[in-house]
Amino acid sequence: MNALGSRPVDESLAETTHFVLPNDTNTLGNLFGGRLLQWLDIACAISAHRHCKRVVVTVAVNHVSFDRPIKLGDLVTIRANVSRAFGTSMEVWADVWVEDQINGSKIKCNSAIYTFVAVDQAGQPTAVPEAVPGNDEQRKRYDGALRRRQLRLILSGKMKPGEATELKALFEHE
Amino acid sequence: MNALGSRPVDESLAETTHFVLPNDTNTLGNLFGGRLLQWLDIACAISAHRHCKRVVVTVAVNHVSFDRPIKLGDLVTIRANVSRAFGTSMEVWADVWVEDQINGSKIKCNSAIYTFVAVDQAGQPTAVPEAVPGNDEQRKRYDGALRRRQLRLILSGKMKPGEATELKALFEHE
Amino acid sequence: MNALGSRPVDESLAETTHFVLPNDTNTLGNLFGGRLLQWLDIACAISAHRHCKRVVVTVAVNHVSFDRPIKLGDLVTIRANVSRAFGTSMEVWADVWVEDQINGSKIKCNSAIYTFVAVDQAGQPTAVPEAVPGNDEQRKRYDGALRRRQLRLILSGKMKPGEATELKALFEHE
Amino acid sequence: MNALGSRPVDESLAETTHFVLPNDTNTLGNLFGGRLLQWLDIACAISAHRHCKRVVVTVAVNHVSFDRPIKLGDLVTIRANVSRAFGTSMEVWADVWVEDQINGSKIKCNSAIYTFVAVDQAGQPTAVPEAVPGNDEQRKRYDGALRRRQLRLILSGKMKPGEATELKALFEHE
Amino acid sequence: MNALGSRPVDESLAETTHFVLPNDTNTLGNLFGGRLLQWLDIACAISAHRHCKRVVVTVAVNHVSFDRPIKLGDLVTIRANVSRAFGTSMEVWADVWVEDQINGSKIKCNSAIYTFVAVDQAGQPTAVPEAVPGNDEQRKRYDGALRRRQLRLILSGKMKPGEATELKALFEHE
Amino acid sequence: MNALGSRPVDESLAETTHFVLPNDTNTLGNLFGGRLLQWLDIACAISAHRHCKRVVVTVAVNHVSFDRPIKLGDLVTIRANVSRAFGTSMEVWADVWVEDQINGSKIKCNSAIYTFVAVDQAGQPTAVPEAVPGNDEQRKRYDGALRRRQLRLILSGKMKPGEATELKALFEHE
Repeated sequence: MNALGSRPVDESLAETTHFVLPNDTNTLGNLFGGRLLQWLDIACAISAHRHCKRVVVTVAVNHVSFDRPIKLGDLVTIRANVSRAFGTSMEVWADVWVEDQINGSKIKCNSAIYTFVAVDQAGQPTAVPEAVPGNDEQRKRYDGALRRRQLRLILSGKMKPGEATELKALFEHE
Repeated sequence: MNALGSRPVDESLAETTHFVLPNDTNTLGNLFGGRLLQWLDIACAISAHRHCKRVVVTVAVNHVSFDRPIKLGDLVTIRANVSRAFGTSMEVWADVWVEDQINGSKIKCNSAIYTFVAVDQAGQPTAVPEAVPGNDEQRKRYDGALRRRQLRLILSGKMKPGEATELKALFEHE
Repeated sequence: MNALGSRPVDESLAETTHFVLPNDTNTLGNLFGGRLLQWLDIACAISAHRHCKRVVVTVAVNHVSFDRPIKLGDLVTIRANVSRAFGTSMEVWADVWVEDQINGSKIKCNSAIYTFVAVDQAGQPTAVPEAVPGNDEQRKRYDGALRRRQLRLILSGKMKPGEATELKALFEHE
Repeated sequence: MNALGSRPVDESLAETTHFVLPNDTNTLGNLFGGRLLQWLDIACAISAHRHCKRVVVTVAVNHVSFDRPIKLGDLVTIRANVSRAFGTSMEVWADVWVEDQINGSKIKCNSAIYTFVAVDQAGQPTAVPEAVPGNDEQRKRYDGALRRRQLRLILSGKMKPGEATELKALFEHE
Repeated sequence: MNALGSRPVDESLAETTHFVLPNDTNTLGNLFGGRLLQWLDIACAISAHRHCKRVVVTVAVNHVSFDRPIKLGDLVTIRANVSRAFGTSMEVWADVWVEDQINGSKIKCNSAIYTFVAVDQAGQPTAVPEAVPGNDEQRKRYDGALRRRQLRLILSGKMKPGEATELKALFEHE
Repeated sequence: MNALGSRPVDESLAETTHFVLPNDTNTLGNLFGGRLLQWLDIACAISAHRHCKRVVVTVAVNHVSFDRPIKLGDLVTIRANVSRAFGTSMEVWADVWVEDQINGSKIKCNSAIYTFVAVDQAGQPTAVPEAVPGNDEQRKRYDGALRRRQLRLILSGKMKPGEATELKALFEHE
C-alpha cells in the first residue's frame, strides 16, 4: 500500500445518464461518435476525481469500441470506475448501457478505457491512493491493467516491446 | 488489390485547424480532453470518407495519447490519413500539432488512431478500396496496422491472444 | 391502483453528474442558472421516462430554488424520482448535490419540482402507472404532491382557489 | 418608497426572439423544455438587470407552464418585466409568444415566474429600487407577488404556512 | 406596388437581447466576432420573415463593422428591419447596441447589412411585398439600398461596373 | 516594404474542414447561414494570425455570398489567405468548397472577405508585415483590396465618396 493508502474500486463509481437529442446525432440519426467520446471523457474524469480528490487530466484513451449504433431518443447510461492506480496515474473503465424503451432492461453496448493523471496546484503529477478491487470482474480488470499499461507505453513509444514482460507472457502462455 | 481498386494514402489527407476558445477549456485553462476527442473523431471521419466516398461510422478508438497540455489561445492543427484498409474497415492516424505563437513553428503534441467502417444506404458494412502507402512513415504505419487490429480485436473480446500471430511475433522476435 | 398497475418510487431514480466547466458559468464564475435548469429538465425527464416507459414532455416547472452558488470546477450530482402520478402526469423531485473536493462529502444545495406528461405516438396524453412511495421522505413528498398540483393549477388559471380543498386545509389546520 | 427610489415596470422590459432550430428540439420535433427554461432565465435576468443596474443571480423559478408544444421552425418571442421588488429580490414575469407563420399574429403559449437577487462586487445581496406598476395587468401581477413570495418561502421551507397571512386570506375570502 | 402589396418598414422590426457569457468570448475576454455574426444572422432572418411570412435564406452579408469591442458581461441588443425589397430578395439592416451597466443608456457599436431571399415549399425564390420607409433614416437606408445591391452584384461577379448606373452616379455627383 | 518586412500570401493559408451535422442546419436541412459565418470568422482569423503572429480581432465583414445551399452531410472545406495588409489591418479572402460525395471533386460555392486588425498586449492596433502575392489570382485580389477598403470606409462612414480615388476610377474607366 502506498503512503496515500487505498480506496475500494466501488467508491470511485461515477454514473451519468443522457437522452440522445437531435443535437447529438450524425447524418444517419445515430449518436455521433465524437459526442459519446466527450461524454465518456467526463464520466471517467469524475470517477478518477472521486478516487483521488485531485484535479485530473486525461493522458490517454486506451480503447473504446462502438459495438452497436445508439439511436436518436435512446437513453444512455455510463458507469465508470477506477480499475487500477499506478503511482500518479489511474486507469478508468467505463461501460455504456442503452435502456430498452419498453421494458427498461439495459443492454451493454460499448466499453471504454481511459487513463488520467492527478495534478497538484502547479499542474505537476501527484501520487494517488491505490485502488482495491472488490469482486471478480473488478479483479479481472485490475489484473489486466498492467498489460494494457505496457501496451499504451509501447504504442506511444515510451517502452520497447522486449521490456513488456507482462504482455509478452500473455502470448507465451496461450 | 481488391475489386474496388486502391487509393494512395496521401489522397485521404484531412486537415482541420482550431483556435482554443474559453468554451473548449477545462478548469486549468487547458484544452478539455473530451473536446479534442470530438475534433479528432471528425477529422478522422473526413479522412475515411475521402478514402472510400461512403458514409463512415466510428467503430473504435484504438489509442490517443495526450502528451502535453494545449493552452487557451493555442492554434491546433489536426492532419489525418487512412493508414490501412481491411475489407470494410479503415484505420486512420491523426497527428495533432500546436503552432508557436511567435515563429509559427509547429510542435507535434498528440497522435490518435481511430477505426471506421464504411456503410451503404441500409447501414450495412460495405467494401472499401485498399490504401497504398507512399513513403517510409506511411509504410511503417501500414505495417503496424495489422498488429494494432489484432490488439483491438483481443481488447474487445473478438479474438483470442493465441490467434494473434502477427502480434505474437512482435514479442518473440525482440 | 389503476389499469397500468403501479411502480415503486425507487425504480424511477435517475442520476446524472456534471463537472462545471467554463462553458457553464456566468460572469461571476458560478454555474449559470439556465444551464442548471436544462440539466434538471433532462434528469427529471429520464426519471419520468423510467417510471412510465413512454415519451414524456415537460408541462410545468413547479419550483426550483437556488440556495447556494455552485462554482466553476464543482462536481454536481442530480438525483431525480417520480414522487407521485396523476392519471397522465407525473410530479418529479430532483435534489442537487455538490461534492466536497477534498473529503468527497456531498452538500445538498438545490431542489426542484417538475411535472411531466406521458404521450403516445400521436402526441396525446396517455395513462401512467401509479407511483408507490417506499420510505418516509418519499411518503412526505407523495402526500404534498396533491397540494402542489392544486397550486400549479391555480397559478396557471386552471383551478379556482375555492376548489383547492387540500390546499385550503393546509392553512385552516395550522 | 425605499432609499433607491422606484422605477416603472415598463422600464424593465426585456424582449428576446428565437427561431426554433433542429439543435433546440426533442425527439418529437418540438422545442425541448430545458432549452426554453434557459432562454427564459436569460430574458428574466436581463429584465432584472435593467431594473436594478446590478449583477443579478437566479434564486428561484417559481412557476413555468408549458401549455402547448412549440414546433421546429416556430418564431418564439419572450417578453419579461420585473413585477415587484422586495428589498434585494425581484419577481420577474415572462410571457412566451409564438408567431403565426402566415398572418403574423402572436399566440401566447407559456408564462414563467422567476426570482432574482441583486448582488454587489463581493457577491452580497444589495437593495434594489421599488417597481411601480403602470396598468391593470401590471397591478394584478404586483398584487399577487406577495402571495407567490409566501408560497415560495413555504415551498423552500423558509416560512411556516401559519405565517403566510396574505396567502391564507386568498382561501378564506373565496 | 407589386402584386403582394407593401408593408411598412416598422412592421419587420426584430429585437433580440443577449448577455455576453464566457462561452461567447475570445481569448481577450471580448465577444467573439463569429458569435456576433451568428446572432446578427438570426435577428436579420427573423426580420425578413416578419416582412414576407415565408421561409427565408441568407444570400449575402453585405457589410458588418465591428467598431468597438464588446466585453464579457455586456448586455447586447440587436434591432433589425427590412430596409428595402427587390422582387424576391430583401436587404436587412441591423444595429447593435451595448447597454451601460450603471445608467442604462445604450451605445450603438456595430451595424450590419444582410440580404435574404424568400423561398417557397420547393425551395424556389418567391416574390415578397415591397418595404415602405416611414421616417427619414428609413428613407435614407431605402435610397442607399439600390447602390449597395449593385455593389453586391459587382463583388460577386454578377454585374459589370459599367452597368451599375446608380453607383456610378454616387462618384460623379460628389 | 514596411519595418516588419513582408510575407508571401501562401504562408498565411489556413484550411479547415467540417461535416455538416444536424446541429448545423436550418429548418430546410441546409447549412444555417450563421454557422457558416462563424466557421469563416475562425478560418480567416487563423490566416490573419499566421500572417502577423499576433492576436487578431475582426473589424469588418466586407462581403460574403451564399451562392448555393450546402446540405446536411456535405463536407465543407474553407481555405483562407491574407490578400493584402494595410498598416495594422489585413484583408482576408476565404473560399468555401463543397466536396462531391462520390467522385471527390470539389465545387466552390461561396467566397468571403473579412478584415482583421492585429493588437498588442494592451489591445492596441500594431503594425503587420506586408503581404506579397505570388500568382495571378493573388495579384488580382491584392489589386482589388484597395478599392474594397475604400468601399468599407465609405459604408462605415469613415471616408467620403469623393476621396475614394481608386474606387472612382473603376467607374470612370469602364
